[in-house]
Amino acid sequence: MHEIRLIFLGFGNVGSTLLRQVLETRETVASRAGVQIVPIALADISGVLYNAQGLPEETLRAALQAVASGRLLESLPGVLPLDAIRSALQPGVILADLTASPHTVPILKAALDAGCGLVLANKLPLAAPWEEARIFFEHPKVRWEVTVGAGLPVIATLNYLLDTGDQITAIEGCMSGTLGYLCSELEQEVPYSSAVRRARELGYTEPDPREDLSGMDVARKALILARTAGWPLDQENLAVESLYPRELASLTVDEFLAAIERLDEEYAARRARAWNEGNILRYVARVTPQAGMVGLTPVPRESALGMLRGPGNHFAFYTARYNEIPLVICGPGAGREVTAAGVLGDIIELGRSDIR
Amino acid sequence: MHEIRLIFLGFGNVGSTLLRQVLETRETVASRAGVQIVPIALADISGVLYNAQGLPEETLRAALQAVASGRLLESLPGVLPLDAIRSALQPGVILADLTASPHTVPILKAALDAGCGLVLANKLPLAAPWEEARIFFEHPKVRWEVTVGAGLPVIATLNYLLDTGDQITAIEGCMSGTLGYLCSELEQEVPYSSAVRRARELGYTEPDPREDLSGMDVARKALILARTAGWPLDQENLAVESLYPRELASLTVDEFLAAIERLDEEYAARRARAWNEGNILRYVARVTPQAGMVGLTPVPRESALGMLRGPGNHFAFYTARYNEIPLVICGPGAGREVTAAGVLGDIIELGRSDIR
Repeated sequence: MHEIRLIFLGFGNVGSTLLRQVLETRETVASRAGVQIVPIALADISGVLYNAQGLPEETLRAALQAVASGRLLESLPGVLPLDAIRSALQPGVILADLTASPHTVPILKAALDAGCGLVLANKLPLAAPWEEARIFFEHPKVRWEVTVGAGLPVIATLNYLLDTGDQITAIEGCMSGTLGYLCSELEQEVPYSSAVRRARELGYTEPDPREDLSGMDVARKALILARTAGWPLDQENLAVESLYPRELASLTVDEFLAAIERLDEEYAARRARAWNEGNILRYVARVTPQAGMVGLTPVPRESALGMLRGPGNHFAFYTARYNEIPLVICGPGAGREVTAAGVLGDIIELGRSDIR
Repeated sequence: MHEIRLIFLGFGNVGSTLLRQVLETRETVASRAGVQIVPIALADISGVLYNAQGLPEETLRAALQAVASGRLLESLPGVLPLDAIRSALQPGVILADLTASPHTVPILKAALDAGCGLVLANKLPLAAPWEEARIFFEHPKVRWEVTVGAGLPVIATLNYLLDTGDQITAIEGCMSGTLGYLCSELEQEVPYSSAVRRARELGYTEPDPREDLSGMDVARKALILARTAGWPLDQENLAVESLYPRELASLTVDEFLAAIERLDEEYAARRARAWNEGNILRYVARVTPQAGMVGLTPVPRESALGMLRGPGNHFAFYTARYNEIPLVICGPGAGREVTAAGVLGDIIELGRSDIR
């Protein structure tokens, strides 16, 4: 039985779901994969719970309780200043970055320097300028399945194609459940402004919906796919269409939500034009070895992308071997359970390969 | 660099394509996966070429040449009686069963006894009665990705779901390119008999098309999926609909092809009935923990299965975590290049894990 000592960097929705899954799947993971996952540190912005031999079950349960009731870890006894996490960085330890923070890169690099493995749910380190990000793509002990399509085996499939010497020619798909929902609403002739407000009320968008509407989150996924495929693209190689005009960028959220009615007509017209040509609007990302595009695209109604409903994601790999009909992975591309499960899969796979 | 010594059991379309891929992808596989694949034996029904240290490049090239010109290995110098393959069974060796033969089980068991790994492209050992087949599902050194969906990562995805403790509730899909083609033809109002004859002429069916039309090949795939999911089903747990009546089973192929016009009306009527209800006919397989069904099924035209065209395969996993929207893998489920690539992926994965 191989023991994997695990650091949770970030302990919100994904972190706490992952911890619950680790506790619930202990026997399965031991019997199927031959590994035992031992949480040694839980960290959020308020501090860290740390025990090099493994945190006691009661501490783990208390931490789950704290998150469930909206408290930070500092509310628990024994919490240490966040910097204490550095003492946990030892060879054989895996650090999982479960944050969405732009500030984790130094600790991630320190972890690699210390001989740790890394599992990233955080897209930002991988979507940084290539010269900063490349270490994460090139280091053998880094995994990032859930940064694209959550728990869907998108990166695993890409790696399988690459490992067996296939030549990837293009990767295309719908990579945002939020924008998928928006497209479905537009299709039902819901005005753009109502669809955006409703998506926000349902919690499908970030509190500031411009973070989704800008397309930057999809662009990051496209960049991560391209870089995983071996194409060292940068942000400037991607043409990204924002779903709101630049002049609305400086407004407050409330002002923004009030201002977007003026966009209703434009999007209704685009939808109608697409429809009259047998098409439907989808927020599509496409990358090739040289460049990429991310934007609202008319696709045939009777195509796989046209048939997507609501928050489903879709990833198509066009390769030398899958040239006429692509290899496609689809399903829900967000959600805490599937995201945590994807992180768990990476931990198991990395832990197993680390035995070598 | 880890060396994998490989035995090719079967050296027809898939075997020769695999050998070509092994030779062409040497550098990629070495740099990405850290393994080197060394072919030590090639076997077909006529004999075996064997060298424990690795067959020389010129022998491998000559064997590829022989297959390309329709000759058996016995046409080459140095070929040994088939039984010589047993001397090649050593710990650390991987044997790939690239046949479609029901007679390989003894050598497969001998290989496991000798400490070899096994990669199966041959469905038959896995679809045998459970008590005979279980050793292949339960042994840690056996892989069988391409027995379902060829190179599509169907088994890999199922294993990922299981490894991370998800609960599979059902697996459903269209698992035969041949019957997919037939359904597409019926949909175009091509008579059943013409569609069958045309599929045979195009080489989509076996020389005796009843082997496809019986549904047994799909039933084997369904059984393999169920067993991989941990459900020890047997043939009698599957309801399988044959696409020809039992009384045509004893005819010769020519008699059969002449006799099937009498079925045209029945299938045209089934197609029309489905169409009038907004449906389309698909040859669908579905397995759950208790049982399975395989047969011609009306599905909504505007569904993922309804949208499938021609030889595309489709696999949907319904699980505790993927319950409303399933996790779906689709793409071409046959073809020598993608099949060989899937075998190569299994060899790499097994070789890597064998290092432990």
